[in-house]
Amino acid sequence: MSTRRDFLHLSAAATAAGVLAAPAAAQAPASSPGRPIPPAGGSQTMLRLATFVPEGGSPPRLGAVRPDGRIIDLSRIANPGFDPARMVSLIEAGPAALERVRQAAASGDGPSVETVRLLAPIPAPTRNVYAVGWNYLEHFAEGQAVRGTHAEYPAHPVFFTKGVNTVNGPYDPIPYDPAVSTAIDWEVELAVIIGKGGRNIAESEAMDHVFGYSVINDTTARDLQIKLHGGQWFKGKSLDGHGPIGPWIVPAADLDPGDLRLQTRVNGVVKQEASTQQMYFKVARIIAELSHGLTLVPGDIIATGTPPGIGNARKPPEFLKPGDVMETEVAGIGTLRNVIQAVPS
Amino acid sequence: MSTRRDFLHLSAAATAAGVLAAPAAAQAPASSPGRPIPPAGGSQTMLRLATFVPEGGSPPRLGAVRPDGRIIDLSRIANPGFDPARMVSLIEAGPAALERVRQAAASGDGPSVETVRLLAPIPAPTRNVYAVGWNYLEHFAEGQAVRGTHAEYPAHPVFFTKGVNTVNGPYDPIPYDPAVSTAIDWEVELAVIIGKGGRNIAESEAMDHVFGYSVINDTTARDLQIKLHGGQWFKGKSLDGHGPIGPWIVPAADLDPGDLRLQTRVNGVVKQEASTQQMYFKVARIIAELSHGLTLVPGDIIATGTPPGIGNARKPPEFLKPGDVMETEVAGIGTLRNVIQAVPS
Repeated sequence: MSTRRDFLHLSAAATAAGVLAAPAAAQAPASSPGRPIPPAGGSQTMLRLATFVPEGGSPPRLGAVRPDGRIIDLSRIANPGFDPARMVSLIEAGPAALERVRQAAASGDGPSVETVRLLAPIPAPTRNVYAVGWNYLEHFAEGQAVRGTHAEYPAHPVFFTKGVNTVNGPYDPIPYDPAVSTAIDWEVELAVIIGKGGRNIAESEAMDHVFGYSVINDTTARDLQIKLHGGQWFKGKSLDGHGPIGPWIVPAADLDPGDLRLQTRVNGVVKQEASTQQMYFKVARIIAELSHGLTLVPGDIIATGTPPGIGNARKPPEFLKPGDVMETEVAGIGTLRNVIQAVPS
Repeated sequence: MSTRRDFLHLSAAATAAGVLAAPAAAQAPASSPGRPIPPAGGSQTMLRLATFVPEGGSPPRLGAVRPDGRIIDLSRIANPGFDPARMVSLIEAGPAALERVRQAAASGDGPSVETVRLLAPIPAPTRNVYAVGWNYLEHFAEGQAVRGTHAEYPAHPVFFTKGVNTVNGPYDPIPYDPAVSTAIDWEVELAVIIGKGGRNIAESEAMDHVFGYSVINDTTARDLQIKLHGGQWFKGKSLDGHGPIGPWIVPAADLDPGDLRLQTRVNGVVKQEASTQQMYFKVARIIAELSHGLTLVPGDIIATGTPPGIGNARKPPEFLKPGDVMETEVAGIGTLRNVIQAVPS
């Protein structure tokens, strides 16, 4: 069981890896991040693009995580055609740069990914994370049941944002402050990373604008989301560190997002399990609707909605508490593992 | 009447000033920005911090607009202690740098502000603009009446965000695409610019975190906001260029935000008129609530809510159409003037 092995890693080997990217450092609590989980599944040629801090704490840079669990330092590519410290630079550099990265990943060598610290693939996006609400019908139904309402299903996607301050590493702790919220809930989601920007993108062309896919947990303070701020979700969706993402980006050419298994586990117990096949608004439709009158730019992140099984819809409701281990998996991409950690108010 | 004079400027002398800051260039339509409006009112020592493009189209830089209408180029200060091309750098540099700017503004000389192009004071914020909904009781009432609902007034501020793509210059056109929305509405608001960042900021200390104040029009596509996206406001608040801001920032030491007259005029007709005294949640409370569990950073922008008089609550409803001139004023700070301009879909 990989779960058992990974738990041992977590408790025994949580590293005290040093350097955080500057924006994250301002927001995340001091902590011991967990050890990365090597890739499982996916083809031998699948590319996994990460932002990582090497052992010893040098500045963050880009890496390619290979199927054998080794990470190739992309700052060692000669004349890469992009800034090897910035994922968005690689995204903007286009197909030729990505091809050079593929070659480096295939032919290079490097240490085990378990010896480095992975950050969010884009640790400091230049705008908030776009997010879609109620994109799985069963989740819409469970939400209505909790609220005691009977709204009609929206004819267009429900969009909100998560603050840049929510962006968190794939194995970093999630701050828990009971003075702010005691109703912290999980939401596994497929994340879409925009490659080519644009406005009024046609649904038929939208997939050409996808750079790749990642995993996000749209961690949510339910009390703040639903009750305290007049029905607008932003605040409840935007507590510091409440958006772990990663562990890497898989380029669109390497993955079909149409039928990927999503799962959230808390302390090893499955809480959410579904397939992206159940998404009501598919990726192309989401991009078309979001970009209507709104210019998307390379590196934009879109969280595409969560399936049923959230804690708030359980009887009785379940919420995360300090010490809990939340695992967020999209099969074919990877798994996030975040410990809920009490922080001083 | 300054209004008549300014209209003449607008029509006769709209300049074809060149360079846009890069992020804005990706989002705003090609256009003839309007001529800046010189300051009116305010003390002789009030500092007005702008980001501007000099005549001739050199790169954008910071400037101080004096009461006599001249703009002092801050990139000419020797050893300024901040990057004179970036407002956030000046904000982060602290009081000593601001004092150097005051001295330069008092003793320097420069061309009339009417000869340059003003950009948004912070043309490319690093995260979305924070915004407060329903912060004037009469506006809440008019919104409920339009919706036919009878919600209770929220016990905490309603927070949402406007995308970075909405940031627009104080005299630049606002894109109008009837395929996206034909229900574009005005919302004059006092904007707060955060100086010192922080999390869990106490209300009693919140004013120490304010760098200064500006004017924003939280321009809104009402159809997208209310009906089309499941009740979450983000999309209707986030069309490209639908957030003109400026014309400059007045430092907190130079302005008391407690009783400032707010006004929106459309084609010279007053549509909104109120005082910030009517704000239900005051600036300190907004900062305290927003920063609860959410780290604010220097340069963060908070739109503090709009008073009654929006187009959507009028009988019959009124919306902006191409050619309309929207003026947005906060007395003591300044006036935005934006023309609604049709863009190709």
